[in-house]
Amino acid sequence: MKRTEKSPLRDTLARNMRLMRAERGWSQEHLAAEAGLNRTYLSAVERSEQNISLDNIWKIARAFGVPASRLIDSP
Amino acid sequence: MKRTEKSPLRDTLARNMRLMRAERGWSQEHLAAEAGLNRTYLSAVERSEQNISLDNIWKIARAFGVPASRLIDSP
Repeated sequence: MKRTEKSPLRDTLARNMRLMRAERGWSQEHLAAEAGLNRTYLSAVERSEQNISLDNIWKIARAFGVPASRLIDSP
Repeated sequence: MKRTEKSPLRDTLARNMRLMRAERGWSQEHLAAEAGLNRTYLSAVERSEQNISLDNIWKIARAFGVPASRLIDSP
C-alpha cells in the first residue's frame, strides 16, 4: 500500500457505522453528539475519506455500546 | 473522554501486537519491515503513546495475516 492509498478498512468501518446507526434509527448528528465528535468529521469517516484514529474509533464504539472490534469486522 | 485522554483501546492493541510478535518470534524491527512502518513509530504504538490511524492498523494486520478486528479484540 502506498502512503497515500486508503485502506479497505475504511469502507468496512463506514458500512458498519451506517448499519449500526440504521439499527438504532440514529442520524449522523445524533451519533456525533453521543460520541462527542464533529458531525462533518463523522460524515467524512462514513464516506471513507477520513483516516480515523484509534481513540476516535473508541468513542464511536462507546456511543454504540459495542466492542470496538465489531466496528471493523468484515461481514 | 477528554480530547487529550488516551483510549483504553491503545493498551488492547499494544498487548495484542506484543503477543502476535511473540507467537511469531518477530522483533519490532521485523514487524516494522513487514508492515512498511517506522520502527520508532511502532515502538510508540506498543507503549500506548501513539494514537494510531486505521490505515496503519490495516498495515499491521496485513503483516500478521490476521483480520484487523483481532488486533483490537479484548481478551
